[in-house]
Amino acid sequence: MKTTYIRDLYKKGSDLEDQEIVVSGWIRTSRASKTFGFIELNDGTYFKNVQIVYDENLSNFEAVSKLSIASAIIIQGKLVLTPDAKQPFEILATTIEVEGESTPEYPLQKKRHTMEYLRTIAHLRPRSNTFSAVFRVRSVAAYAIHKFFQDRGFVYVHTPIITGSDAEGAGQMFRVTTMDLENLPMSDNGQLDVAEDFFGKETNLTVSGQLEAETFALAFRDVYTFGPTFRAENSNTKRHAAEFWMIEPEIAFADLNDNMDLAEDMVKYIIDYVLEQCPEEMKFFNERIDKGLLDRLTHVLSSDFVRVTYTEAVEALKNSGETFEFPVFWGADLQTEHERYLTEVIYKKPVFVTDYPKEIKSFYMRMNADQKTVAAMDLLVPGIGELIGGSQREERYDLLLNRIHEMGLQEEDYWWYLELRKFGGTRHAGYGLGFERMIMYLTGMGNIRDVVPFPRTVKNAEF
Amino acid sequence: MKTTYIRDLYKKGSDLEDQEIVVSGWIRTSRASKTFGFIELNDGTYFKNVQIVYDENLSNFEAVSKLSIASAIIIQGKLVLTPDAKQPFEILATTIEVEGESTPEYPLQKKRHTMEYLRTIAHLRPRSNTFSAVFRVRSVAAYAIHKFFQDRGFVYVHTPIITGSDAEGAGQMFRVTTMDLENLPMSDNGQLDVAEDFFGKETNLTVSGQLEAETFALAFRDVYTFGPTFRAENSNTKRHAAEFWMIEPEIAFADLNDNMDLAEDMVKYIIDYVLEQCPEEMKFFNERIDKGLLDRLTHVLSSDFVRVTYTEAVEALKNSGETFEFPVFWGADLQTEHERYLTEVIYKKPVFVTDYPKEIKSFYMRMNADQKTVAAMDLLVPGIGELIGGSQREERYDLLLNRIHEMGLQEEDYWWYLELRKFGGTRHAGYGLGFERMIMYLTGMGNIRDVVPFPRTVKNAEF
Repeated sequence: MKTTYIRDLYKKGSDLEDQEIVVSGWIRTSRASKTFGFIELNDGTYFKNVQIVYDENLSNFEAVSKLSIASAIIIQGKLVLTPDAKQPFEILATTIEVEGESTPEYPLQKKRHTMEYLRTIAHLRPRSNTFSAVFRVRSVAAYAIHKFFQDRGFVYVHTPIITGSDAEGAGQMFRVTTMDLENLPMSDNGQLDVAEDFFGKETNLTVSGQLEAETFALAFRDVYTFGPTFRAENSNTKRHAAEFWMIEPEIAFADLNDNMDLAEDMVKYIIDYVLEQCPEEMKFFNERIDKGLLDRLTHVLSSDFVRVTYTEAVEALKNSGETFEFPVFWGADLQTEHERYLTEVIYKKPVFVTDYPKEIKSFYMRMNADQKTVAAMDLLVPGIGELIGGSQREERYDLLLNRIHEMGLQEEDYWWYLELRKFGGTRHAGYGLGFERMIMYLTGMGNIRDVVPFPRTVKNAEF
Repeated sequence: MKTTYIRDLYKKGSDLEDQEIVVSGWIRTSRASKTFGFIELNDGTYFKNVQIVYDENLSNFEAVSKLSIASAIIIQGKLVLTPDAKQPFEILATTIEVEGESTPEYPLQKKRHTMEYLRTIAHLRPRSNTFSAVFRVRSVAAYAIHKFFQDRGFVYVHTPIITGSDAEGAGQMFRVTTMDLENLPMSDNGQLDVAEDFFGKETNLTVSGQLEAETFALAFRDVYTFGPTFRAENSNTKRHAAEFWMIEPEIAFADLNDNMDLAEDMVKYIIDYVLEQCPEEMKFFNERIDKGLLDRLTHVLSSDFVRVTYTEAVEALKNSGETFEFPVFWGADLQTEHERYLTEVIYKKPVFVTDYPKEIKSFYMRMNADQKTVAAMDLLVPGIGELIGGSQREERYDLLLNRIHEMGLQEEDYWWYLELRKFGGTRHAGYGLGFERMIMYLTGMGNIRDVVPFPRTVKNAEF
């Protein structure tokens, strides 16, 4: 008989009344008397469990009643409706086959564990309620992002992970090499001979696929990346990981306003999709992780995001009367405390801050007419601060070249990037969404280590 | 006025008759007389161009008629149906605005270029017909894969890129480090002090996410990965790149037959989806790149894939009377020539070969009752050879540990992988699909360098 998934049990519900079915999964809880027993079974296809009821008529009653938590079993039985119970139905087992036993040493017992401890058993934590919910939402949100862009005809581009260039001109990067570190190849003058390395030159892990995505936007018009990016920053915070996934759309014949429209539509789409596809998980987060979560997310769905310039934002912060740890003045970068104050206290909804001083932004951002600010945008959201950073790109060859020189970058490293401005360049814009930050925003989880399956941080690359 | 995408022009067709519209894009070809001109415009949203017609009434007629190929322009005009022409409609321009000029030095002129040359301008080649088709198919196929698995409730898991372990126990890997190679940290005994490295130990780029995916399959039942993987093999072939994307589904409560069913469904789904979504591109490949392509792919859709054991396959090869470069005997790994002969000549459709000798397969594959073969499967397809490799995993703790020892692997490196067999382990299986190989199969492109946006191969990491 074909196995029925618990997801489908809850979908079909009473249609299956009194039918003989097979389910399989893992024991979440188990209790038994001398004559009957109850098992809460989870099969991974759904957040909720189903209750299995069995009695002494079961041929292996003794053995089943002694099974440890996490044991894998296959049940044949009848689905009966239980209108007066907490759950809408249960399964009266006629046979229970043991697929794989667990032991009492199973580290994920019913009691509450700290998040820190659960990180040490990252191979088992997706079996807990919290991480089952986190990683299903992560999967569904990833798909929502693909669906959003593909439904709009965007081309998904896989930009390179190993790169010979540093897109941002600033990131701390991981070196990639096949050279034997115990026996490095040296040239005659005693220098490291990188020509001997796999790629014949120094290579690193990418910090952004933006520059390569721009080449595709000038061919396909609307494109996006979705892939891993890396920062070798020696910072041990709740919001930073060395390896994280990023989404970087890039659109041609488009300016900063088009860019903000796209980002706003995308954020709302992701929230809406996850609320619709993961109602049980989202209810769980709202009850157990972050009490205001659902209100906050549904509020975002119905809000028009605010759009203010950096100059206006600085004025608003200065006039707020609030004292901040970092001083607020025109020319200073906004800190998380400022960002959160803007979105949580002053505007009480997501805020795009635009047109930042050129000194605190990247070389590729488009110079505004004032010659002091660039067409940048950051999206700030309550509870997180910066969720998205983007800009209109400098499409004017001379101005871009000028900025490359001003920033002390090497013109020859950007030959192909510059050529995009020579051969049919257009206005274009794009942004980066940190996927993990989006998941934290969606779930209320407070530490990036708890929204990545196997996080990589300073001194930690387990599993 | 809002811009209409060329994709939508072809979708709506005659509904737009005589309407005033705005289109924008890049000039593919241009010719003009003293009084009128024609432009083939491509806007990246569709494989086909649209024809723009203008005449001397255009205020900037002179300037427009001199524009170089690849220049970006914005046209306002009227859509008129042209039932007698090659294309169903054209646009009579009333204004043409120049968004970004190109120059006669534009490297991608109308004439035929070699694939080798086009690789040197990877930032421009997506603007050519061939690469526009390749990279749109790549994007659509990626989405097809996500859609296939998500529609079936699979959880998408991001397995780590930077890893402290070597999943296959065999791959040649790229080292990842933040140590200064010019000044490596040494411990007192003169050894490299890896404790000083970013992660406090030696780390490499992943060759497979399978082992981590298994941890998720034993929580969510049905999961898949889709991410970049790396091989530092010094091999310069048409089928190998140092960086490539891989899809690795993993299913619990499932055996080798379930695994083959899934792989067959997936391959057919991808082909079907791409044929449906990219008819123009596929027609182009069939006409210009690989004459038999469409026949071959539609034949696959209607075939039941063959399933034979390795032992049967070896017998069939031996009895074929064909002479091969590499000898065929029981115990030898199948070479590409053997694989292609099986699928192209003997069976004439996709073939699963199963149950390989344990000596030529990985430690984690499930031992068969004969104690000589393991429950492995490779999917061979015409024109390519191996497209998919997979297996049922060894779920029996003692047998797995035994194989780890036999292969000379370190037990402590696999503590968490072994624990999956202790705590509610189940039968489970999975496979890996090389995404680039799938794209070669779908498009008929013969070199992996031409299906990756910016390929990374030996001595090559440009862009």
